[in-house]
Amino acid sequence: MRQAIVDLEASRIREVANAGLGREDVLAFWFGESDEVTPEFIRQAASDSILRGETFYAHNLGLPELREAIAGYTTALHGAVGADRIAVTSGGVSALMLAVQALVNAGDEVVAVTPVWPNLTAQPAILGACVRCVALQVIDGAWRLDLPALLRAVTPATRLLIVNAPNNPTGWTLNPAEQQAILQHCRATGTWILADEVYERLYYEGGETRAAPSFLDVAGPDDRLVVAQSFSKSFLMTGWRLGWLVMPAAMTPHMGKLIEFNTSCTSVFVQRAGLAALASADEVTPRVVAHLRRCRDTLVPLLQAVPGVHVSPAPGGMYAFFRIDGQADSLATAKRLVTEAGLGIAPGNAFGEEGQGWFRWCFATQELGRLAEGVRRLERWLAAQPRG
Amino acid sequence: MRQAIVDLEASRIREVANAGLGREDVLAFWFGESDEVTPEFIRQAASDSILRGETFYAHNLGLPELREAIAGYTTALHGAVGADRIAVTSGGVSALMLAVQALVNAGDEVVAVTPVWPNLTAQPAILGACVRCVALQVIDGAWRLDLPALLRAVTPATRLLIVNAPNNPTGWTLNPAEQQAILQHCRATGTWILADEVYERLYYEGGETRAAPSFLDVAGPDDRLVVAQSFSKSFLMTGWRLGWLVMPAAMTPHMGKLIEFNTSCTSVFVQRAGLAALASADEVTPRVVAHLRRCRDTLVPLLQAVPGVHVSPAPGGMYAFFRIDGQADSLATAKRLVTEAGLGIAPGNAFGEEGQGWFRWCFATQELGRLAEGVRRLERWLAAQPRG
Repeated sequence: MRQAIVDLEASRIREVANAGLGREDVLAFWFGESDEVTPEFIRQAASDSILRGETFYAHNLGLPELREAIAGYTTALHGAVGADRIAVTSGGVSALMLAVQALVNAGDEVVAVTPVWPNLTAQPAILGACVRCVALQVIDGAWRLDLPALLRAVTPATRLLIVNAPNNPTGWTLNPAEQQAILQHCRATGTWILADEVYERLYYEGGETRAAPSFLDVAGPDDRLVVAQSFSKSFLMTGWRLGWLVMPAAMTPHMGKLIEFNTSCTSVFVQRAGLAALASADEVTPRVVAHLRRCRDTLVPLLQAVPGVHVSPAPGGMYAFFRIDGQADSLATAKRLVTEAGLGIAPGNAFGEEGQGWFRWCFATQELGRLAEGVRRLERWLAAQPRG
Repeated sequence: MRQAIVDLEASRIREVANAGLGREDVLAFWFGESDEVTPEFIRQAASDSILRGETFYAHNLGLPELREAIAGYTTALHGAVGADRIAVTSGGVSALMLAVQALVNAGDEVVAVTPVWPNLTAQPAILGACVRCVALQVIDGAWRLDLPALLRAVTPATRLLIVNAPNNPTGWTLNPAEQQAILQHCRATGTWILADEVYERLYYEGGETRAAPSFLDVAGPDDRLVVAQSFSKSFLMTGWRLGWLVMPAAMTPHMGKLIEFNTSCTSVFVQRAGLAALASADEVTPRVVAHLRRCRDTLVPLLQAVPGVHVSPAPGGMYAFFRIDGQADSLATAKRLVTEAGLGIAPGNAFGEEGQGWFRWCFATQELGRLAEGVRRLERWLAAQPRG
């Protein structure tokens, strides 16, 4: 096997989850997924498609009607985007991997803003690229971009800049001025931007019908920008593996080739589910976001009331990202919390070394009482620890 | 974009299909897919799963029960294979791409046996590898492996050997002695073998319950061998995107990481369909194979009766691969056949330059009459051509 693949780090979240195997009463908040099933009408659309026999290969780039629907959805949020700039992908992860394959040669330099979910730095490593990380800063307990540091890091030698905002795990979100500055700089250096914006609708600064600021708001149609999107978060469709890419139109035929060579196409019945979801986006997503806001506004104050816990409400995403006094080794503490307290949270250093000493709690749950019970478990466990 | 991606050849089959756009009466035999829908009980299993709410993320490597079922199915065909050697993938194409990512660094040398479907040579090119092709030989109208030439081509500098047998497009199939010789040689050179054996059940030399010879029959569990498989052909499940890998057990955890970074996981409801298929493999697959044999034995004699057409029945696969006197430019002829005769077949040079002057006809159809009508269209068109 390639050493680069052997060296890829296995998921530290999975390592924590494995520590809890056999313990049935764990309250698990470690994965980035709601415990709410996909809405019934979306599931019905897929079932109908399967039962009427849509079991054949489809176009590499996706059903034309789904590409049109995605273009319409994107246009409503961010201004005119044509279907010729859209490719349907087998999940947001696949969208990102395809973009990296399109852009990154072995040996190329890639800059990534961290902490970030590990897939974004692993993908260029699989292509043999060199990944440089630019760390977010913690100011008054909240994560912020060090814009000058990022702009210094991106040079004409930088092939690709990878940014995930709203960010997993921190909830940090780019503002339009920062996006404008990054775009201008990357235009000058000739650097592509890969923007992972799958949490854009999980944004709590505007109303529930808004989206977080997107690079699409500031870029032109031919800018070196690829945006990865997903149905997972906004439509409660994690297990469907359905996403899309927005890219310059000239890139789309090449992306069709890459889809052929990676996954061939996305199942038609899954695309039918996506069509149903988009047709009712104005009903589904605001409800999802309003509920997630309630989750966030339930969890964060409860956590803030726990002695030694430091957390501030994030503007976007579905996570509380927090520190605990005296718990500097995230992985060790997360494992102990599973086995000793029956509480499953993700260690912050699963997202880069900047996350060491931090913890990620996914607050997407149907029952707010689970969040309260989880915090009780954390508090009880902390109270039982010897003072440092 | 990377030049390597721009340079990837777009599908010549698609180019022919595009030439027929707007013409509604085309009899299409160009894609590698039956026109028969997936069996009803398999579709029902997926629909049931969706409707009961299995819409969440699953394990990277697949449902444990599906990995066990695949291991049992493989063991019955090829001898003991444990579930710890199995990874469920989002289609056979994804299985192959994952294997290439695991094994091939940029700049590595890869040897491929051609003609072959273009994905197998495109995937290492995406990773930046150098692909050397070893051509099959035509002897008495049938395609055969030049074993000495292949063994000469594979040296200690060869990182990976890619072989697809039963072969798309030629139907050529490896025999156990050839597999043994290749394996011994690759053990000596330290070369990995990636065997695309997705057509193994579409094999007409034994009974319908047999499979074509597999590298799994001759290799040990720790040999440098990865086998890619798919539900597409044996279970009429092309559009489901469900496949698997068999590999040395030590490689499996690393493959789990690569699945995380490529597709995350395969939808649970698709895996449920796979479980249903495997539970009834002894009923479904022999029926599929018996019908395909009828298709082959209908099409090939009809083609042989056409003046100027040269074809022999292949031992495996779902294609007739044939030459036509005076038609040296496969792509040009295939395009003319679409527009002038309403007959859709794939140009042989879509599969490598060795296929120039050849044509691929997928004989997988429910209505044998379609094959006869297709041959009539070919014969009529040929009769109308000026003599060379």
